[in-house]
Amino acid sequence: MKIGILTSGGDCPGLNAVIRGAVLTGDRHFEDEFVGYRDGWRGVIENDLVPIPRRRVRGIGRQGGTILGTSRANPFHDGQDGAAIVRRAMEAEEVDALIAIGGDGTLYTANRLFEAGIPVVGVPKTVDNDLDATDYTFGFHTAVEIATESLDRLRMTGDSHHRCMVAEVMGRSVGWIALHSGMAAGAHVICIPEFPLSLDEICAHVQSAWDRRRAPLVVVAEGFQPRDAPAGLMDYELDEFGRPRFGGIAQALAPLIEQRLGIESRATVLGHIQRGGEPTAYDRVLATRFGMAVMDLVHSRRYGRMVSLRGTDIVDVPLTEAIDNPKAVPASRWDEARALFG
Amino acid sequence: MKIGILTSGGDCPGLNAVIRGAVLTGDRHFEDEFVGYRDGWRGVIENDLVPIPRRRVRGIGRQGGTILGTSRANPFHDGQDGAAIVRRAMEAEEVDALIAIGGDGTLYTANRLFEAGIPVVGVPKTVDNDLDATDYTFGFHTAVEIATESLDRLRMTGDSHHRCMVAEVMGRSVGWIALHSGMAAGAHVICIPEFPLSLDEICAHVQSAWDRRRAPLVVVAEGFQPRDAPAGLMDYELDEFGRPRFGGIAQALAPLIEQRLGIESRATVLGHIQRGGEPTAYDRVLATRFGMAVMDLVHSRRYGRMVSLRGTDIVDVPLTEAIDNPKAVPASRWDEARALFG
Amino acid sequence: MKIGILTSGGDCPGLNAVIRGAVLTGDRHFEDEFVGYRDGWRGVIENDLVPIPRRRVRGIGRQGGTILGTSRANPFHDGQDGAAIVRRAMEAEEVDALIAIGGDGTLYTANRLFEAGIPVVGVPKTVDNDLDATDYTFGFHTAVEIATESLDRLRMTGDSHHRCMVAEVMGRSVGWIALHSGMAAGAHVICIPEFPLSLDEICAHVQSAWDRRRAPLVVVAEGFQPRDAPAGLMDYELDEFGRPRFGGIAQALAPLIEQRLGIESRATVLGHIQRGGEPTAYDRVLATRFGMAVMDLVHSRRYGRMVSLRGTDIVDVPLTEAIDNPKAVPASRWDEARALFG
Amino acid sequence: MKIGILTSGGDCPGLNAVIRGAVLTGDRHFEDEFVGYRDGWRGVIENDLVPIPRRRVRGIGRQGGTILGTSRANPFHDGQDGAAIVRRAMEAEEVDALIAIGGDGTLYTANRLFEAGIPVVGVPKTVDNDLDATDYTFGFHTAVEIATESLDRLRMTGDSHHRCMVAEVMGRSVGWIALHSGMAAGAHVICIPEFPLSLDEICAHVQSAWDRRRAPLVVVAEGFQPRDAPAGLMDYELDEFGRPRFGGIAQALAPLIEQRLGIESRATVLGHIQRGGEPTAYDRVLATRFGMAVMDLVHSRRYGRMVSLRGTDIVDVPLTEAIDNPKAVPASRWDEARALFG
Repeated sequence: MKIGILTSGGDCPGLNAVIRGAVLTGDRHFEDEFVGYRDGWRGVIENDLVPIPRRRVRGIGRQGGTILGTSRANPFHDGQDGAAIVRRAMEAEEVDALIAIGGDGTLYTANRLFEAGIPVVGVPKTVDNDLDATDYTFGFHTAVEIATESLDRLRMTGDSHHRCMVAEVMGRSVGWIALHSGMAAGAHVICIPEFPLSLDEICAHVQSAWDRRRAPLVVVAEGFQPRDAPAGLMDYELDEFGRPRFGGIAQALAPLIEQRLGIESRATVLGHIQRGGEPTAYDRVLATRFGMAVMDLVHSRRYGRMVSLRGTDIVDVPLTEAIDNPKAVPASRWDEARALFG
Repeated sequence: MKIGILTSGGDCPGLNAVIRGAVLTGDRHFEDEFVGYRDGWRGVIENDLVPIPRRRVRGIGRQGGTILGTSRANPFHDGQDGAAIVRRAMEAEEVDALIAIGGDGTLYTANRLFEAGIPVVGVPKTVDNDLDATDYTFGFHTAVEIATESLDRLRMTGDSHHRCMVAEVMGRSVGWIALHSGMAAGAHVICIPEFPLSLDEICAHVQSAWDRRRAPLVVVAEGFQPRDAPAGLMDYELDEFGRPRFGGIAQALAPLIEQRLGIESRATVLGHIQRGGEPTAYDRVLATRFGMAVMDLVHSRRYGRMVSLRGTDIVDVPLTEAIDNPKAVPASRWDEARALFG
Repeated sequence: MKIGILTSGGDCPGLNAVIRGAVLTGDRHFEDEFVGYRDGWRGVIENDLVPIPRRRVRGIGRQGGTILGTSRANPFHDGQDGAAIVRRAMEAEEVDALIAIGGDGTLYTANRLFEAGIPVVGVPKTVDNDLDATDYTFGFHTAVEIATESLDRLRMTGDSHHRCMVAEVMGRSVGWIALHSGMAAGAHVICIPEFPLSLDEICAHVQSAWDRRRAPLVVVAEGFQPRDAPAGLMDYELDEFGRPRFGGIAQALAPLIEQRLGIESRATVLGHIQRGGEPTAYDRVLATRFGMAVMDLVHSRRYGRMVSLRGTDIVDVPLTEAIDNPKAVPASRWDEARALFG
Repeated sequence: MKIGILTSGGDCPGLNAVIRGAVLTGDRHFEDEFVGYRDGWRGVIENDLVPIPRRRVRGIGRQGGTILGTSRANPFHDGQDGAAIVRRAMEAEEVDALIAIGGDGTLYTANRLFEAGIPVVGVPKTVDNDLDATDYTFGFHTAVEIATESLDRLRMTGDSHHRCMVAEVMGRSVGWIALHSGMAAGAHVICIPEFPLSLDEICAHVQSAWDRRRAPLVVVAEGFQPRDAPAGLMDYELDEFGRPRFGGIAQALAPLIEQRLGIESRATVLGHIQRGGEPTAYDRVLATRFGMAVMDLVHSRRYGRMVSLRGTDIVDVPLTEAIDNPKAVPASRWDEARALFG
């Protein structure tokens, strides 16, 4: 078969390992031919693609990012007939099936295409771990490792200066990275969108750590807002130079903590370094297994489905599962984490 | 309650995070008092113990090794009445319950004690991942990360010198570390005890990589033996200086590959660096959760049981499960891995 | 002798290795006794100190931060008679000599004390590498490693998204960290305070990289300002929530680049993670050597001097040298670096 | 000009950064054309070369190993007229000048060619740091970082098991890597070829650490032999399977220490992982500067010379300096290091 691969949405450590796993499997066991669409759906829409011979995937399993590039393009954009666009593109290059690697948006698009009769399968990608359709996916643990390593460093400098360090990690709508990296680094309070603490609660935990002669470490997910945030606190509008009014929630929390408690506080926004790293071995193995397993879906014509991790097994589920079930931090995990606060 | 903790058997990254998780939970939520037995069962037998106040566990979650020390001592050694010994020791210090952190041997001992009426619970520890009673336990992924990082380095020097690099990783009876690190590093052949390849098969994969202008990377578990090993190949006896006759299976394979194929080959035995590292964030989180969960077992008097990871949940199972079910690499994972060989 | 040690100013990876080197040397070869003043000069002023027995320095050589704590306190603050304060404090505890570990401010204070007859020696500390009195000091190379690792990650995600990544590193008055980490990571333009580029020049380099299908990587020292910065660009005043108006120069540059060139740009401010890490081996060795060498100064009564690295040798120079000669990036190094831009 | 580059001898982190620095400089400032000889002098002898366009060096600065490959071939091998061979090869491809990147052997060969009238310049490479002609060269600090990281891990597992850990690092004739990594990791004894300790001395330091309740850490350079080694101890002959009789000096020392002191001891041979890593930022910067500076030698026709680091400056010296002056660990550095033993 001739198979088209695309990576779409935010990049994520492990994308290249998926591509490698799929291409090696197809090359060796099915004599498949692979093409890669550049920058996700944009490449499909504009018929911008490159062949992916086996030699091209040599050694990419450990590389971060994606060799195919990515974008947030979408064939259904502006009410266009995305299915027709994609079908035309596939026919033009005689592509028999598509492998779409991406998050809920990408998989939603893939499912619409599938419902329109296009042979497409999916590989779930979310650095935030917000897909309930799989226990974990590649990239999340790498991001947690990078965040934890940074938190360890912040704690050391915080201890030396007797400062409260406020660190902002990724997570617009879910707090998984904050929860895991915060637990790993022994944070004194973790702020996640699912269970918004109040400023009073945050300060109480900070004070309690301080009273035990600890330099308080506060980990906050970028999407967090304090339950009792003063009006305008989260005001992000740009100034005349196009600069954000401030760098993020961490930069809002640090001065508030300092004002309330009189404890010198510093903010750090980890930002893009969390998603750019080489994948950890855990993520390389998972991504490789996903890439290999998705080829079974293709060759058994189980279109409209995606690979998924359950326990230690790779299984497959309908693409719709990726869309219907966002995965927020459950109360049980939150209670577990908060039991260590302060 | 007054609770005794011990770490027994080979050390493993994450032991300290378990101790920290247990002590913080007991201290905050149950007003428990903790003592640590030095060097596993030896400390119990010799009544050698230290208090573990909350401040003692500060910041140990990221430390490798174990603050309590470990050994391979066993109260039932030489047919002694281990239960009586342990009971006496516990009574002498008014210890109400024991938390035994260790591998199958330790958990077997714990279960014998439980059957003799001693209030003991367990936390599974195996850097080799050979316990079927849990999906994973702490330490394994750290060892895989360290091994993979080393394999990445060996591959770079192998490529520059056009050499076949043979790397030996941990795994006396199971090949999990070899399987995961080998897949992560893109090894051309992985040798594990569960599915012993022959020298011919190994050489065939090495040659095939070589023919594609790759520097072959061979990952071998320490317990592997080629199916058709010449007599005496695995001969380990010590010489007059107490030196092992050779450093391990990798040092046996490398020259054989070089002799058969004429490809310059080098052996590296990763050894103890795999178990000594700081735990990864993954292992810190898992170990912390184990430490917290085992306190629920203690306080709900669910003795004779141990904590376990199933999917993303911490559950508990009888200690006997740890003993009855060693976890070897299954055929499905082996077929998956070998599909990428050569 | 009874020797007092203090660490003052911003923390820096390697401070603990200096303390360890000094204490081990004094303990073994001179039977010295050590006390540590808490939080730099504050501990001296308030007579807040702790004994540092040999066992206290065990294993601290690899720890970041400082076990003694640090602050920006200064005995001459508010025109006080700092010499009298320090002399009284030393007499009260029968401290024979002081080892002051710090940057130009600390060493300036140490020199004033020396001129007033106080037996004090110095160890230069500057994560920014802005002291001409020594080739390098500990902490700088660690900060460069951490920054470079982050830049490598930013480059990977930049490549995947075809974005211009703007990364801000430490360096208020000098650009050494930006220069070294930028060269190491292969940045397309490096912005340092010593040779302020204009926005036009920055954009020209970004465009030139873009035209060669590279994701532009811009490294900027926190103290940099474009030669032709529009009025108000660097406006840092706080808003009503005590938030800085923006997070730093990187957050000012990114939108300007995006506006001018139409290339999507993202800013990352590395911040405190650069100074909090475990020291690299290079810095551990240098710091240990400094700690050992400063004991020779003490026991040979060469007060008023500090240790220094020249080539591969540890030498000593007057404290005044640390004050009189800030070390900016020279034109030769700037020309060398810029030759790789664009 | 048309310039040929070759990398010869053992690989070393930073080789690719040298190539990148040279090619970018030549491409931008001199419109040079570059060719790379494959596998060092072998490529010259067999006229096996590849063009190195600018795009080929993209992103290689952080890659370990060498994109050109390396070997120990030598044009003067077997008394051949190496100069004639090289001249012919250069003329055949109209190569105007050679850049030889390698250790003392390579630079010796380069000098013989220069004396025969061939336009060649050199870049010193030695992971062992055994060239007196330069303060340091790239690769050494990377190897020290990797070794130190491993030693940190060995110390953690040693502490948990109360074992003496014996670690063998690179260094056949000089002990620089052992000296630096041992000091960085806080080893209790360091064994280097320049100042051979006796088994008694080694055991005395091990015992002294043990008596202070430390797990002794012994770092030994591969070329070390105890002053009083029993006859046959260092016997390396191969057995009938082509296996070395033992894995190295560490595997000889560990059992001897265990026999003499009754302290359980374990050996680890770090081996090739020390040379295969990605270069540290320090080595990337130094290698890049060397690559840029060597182009000045070429274009100013200062043939027969090589680049060198003195303090923080890149200078140039005659190739002969690399040959005449091996750099052993001097007594001053040895005394400094041993002052921390035991």
